[in-house]
Amino acid sequence: MHTFWGSVDGTLLRLDPEEIPHALKVLRLQPGDALHVLDGSGNRYTGTVTRAHKKEVIAEVQETLYDFGAVSGHLHLAIAPTKNVDRMHFFLEKAVEMGIHEVTPLVSFHSERRHWNAERAVRVMKAACTQSHKGKLPVLHPLQSLEDLIKQTDATRIRACMATCLEAPKESWVEILKAQPERPALLCIGPEGDFSLAEWEHAQQAGFQHVHLGAHRLRTETAGLYAVAAFAQRGL
Amino acid sequence: MHTFWGSVDGTLLRLDPEEIPHALKVLRLQPGDALHVLDGSGNRYTGTVTRAHKKEVIAEVQETLYDFGAVSGHLHLAIAPTKNVDRMHFFLEKAVEMGIHEVTPLVSFHSERRHWNAERAVRVMKAACTQSHKGKLPVLHPLQSLEDLIKQTDATRIRACMATCLEAPKESWVEILKAQPERPALLCIGPEGDFSLAEWEHAQQAGFQHVHLGAHRLRTETAGLYAVAAFAQRGL
Repeated sequence: MHTFWGSVDGTLLRLDPEEIPHALKVLRLQPGDALHVLDGSGNRYTGTVTRAHKKEVIAEVQETLYDFGAVSGHLHLAIAPTKNVDRMHFFLEKAVEMGIHEVTPLVSFHSERRHWNAERAVRVMKAACTQSHKGKLPVLHPLQSLEDLIKQTDATRIRACMATCLEAPKESWVEILKAQPERPALLCIGPEGDFSLAEWEHAQQAGFQHVHLGAHRLRTETAGLYAVAAFAQRGL
Repeated sequence: MHTFWGSVDGTLLRLDPEEIPHALKVLRLQPGDALHVLDGSGNRYTGTVTRAHKKEVIAEVQETLYDFGAVSGHLHLAIAPTKNVDRMHFFLEKAVEMGIHEVTPLVSFHSERRHWNAERAVRVMKAACTQSHKGKLPVLHPLQSLEDLIKQTDATRIRACMATCLEAPKESWVEILKAQPERPALLCIGPEGDFSLAEWEHAQQAGFQHVHLGAHRLRTETAGLYAVAAFAQRGL
């Protein structure tokens, strides 16, 4: 059975307009066909098509599965988008597959990319949800400055961390996750040129913890993948 | 100081021909300039340019650093290349950054891709070595059938594993690595359609262990990244 993105209103499912050409022309969906619909809430609806028109595809809910593919814990990654946006999309796709909950594209002092197409990123994330059987679309925040992110973070409530290559005492991100696997965690990953010393000091004053991501020099998006994999493996 | 790929003959360093245009036209390398050279052996040579010509760039070794960026343990991933080759290149780049030692592109029953441009893959791996400061180029084997790989594997000597979604008892790849972090490990990751039951049975008879990669449905290349990250984090 095929899975589509859409919205739900009572027992009525409505496919997203961008899903319709594929649903009708490639999969030849017709009234009476069964389908799955995700709306990003965490539910997966099973329905039967009642109307299949190029302007709208409607289905009637037959069954609702709650917390479809839910991932326990809470990981929020704030990451500076790379100059090459494909690398960031690849990261997002993999991060969703491995179970991230929240992403903030970050602008910091050394950022090379200061604009960001959120719509394309959401499309990538939705496709990854469909592919990896997850009903909950991770939160994608708008592009934000590190300063604003720090201001909004309550480091007494969540485990707030910053990964840098700066010379200063650090703990292992992997060990931090293992020590408290259920505690919500935020990790900031800087741009190609790393966070500046002033940025780290600012974060430190706000209660952020300095972390390392192992022995290797990792690109920004590889650091992100490493961090999400550690989260996925923290309780295993 | 810039790093280039090349070969060494006594105290003579010779840049690879494909490095020359960039070295001369972009970086404007001239006699007397200092450079680093990697030859994939694990050494990093520091040298001084003695000849900078469009047909050859030669330098004299000043210093040799052994085991540059060496990664302890030994991880060999045998992975079925994806239909979209960009995904495989992205995987290779990240795998090198995170410290893989050996890669075998695999052809199995459900493989969609049965040809493979090894030259392009090596270029990706070399660039990842340069970027992540590793002197040893991981071994990239030619495309191989699963059958041949199984035949050549001595499962009494190395920890040989196969990851599948088949219904059969499995152990956690993460736990296996943690239990014996120093033992060389081989992991087989199948194509989009997974390994077949017959393939798993064949591997099992040869002493392979059945493993899982956590709770999520992962694409082939994401499974590869997850497996390499687990290796990088096994002893942390």
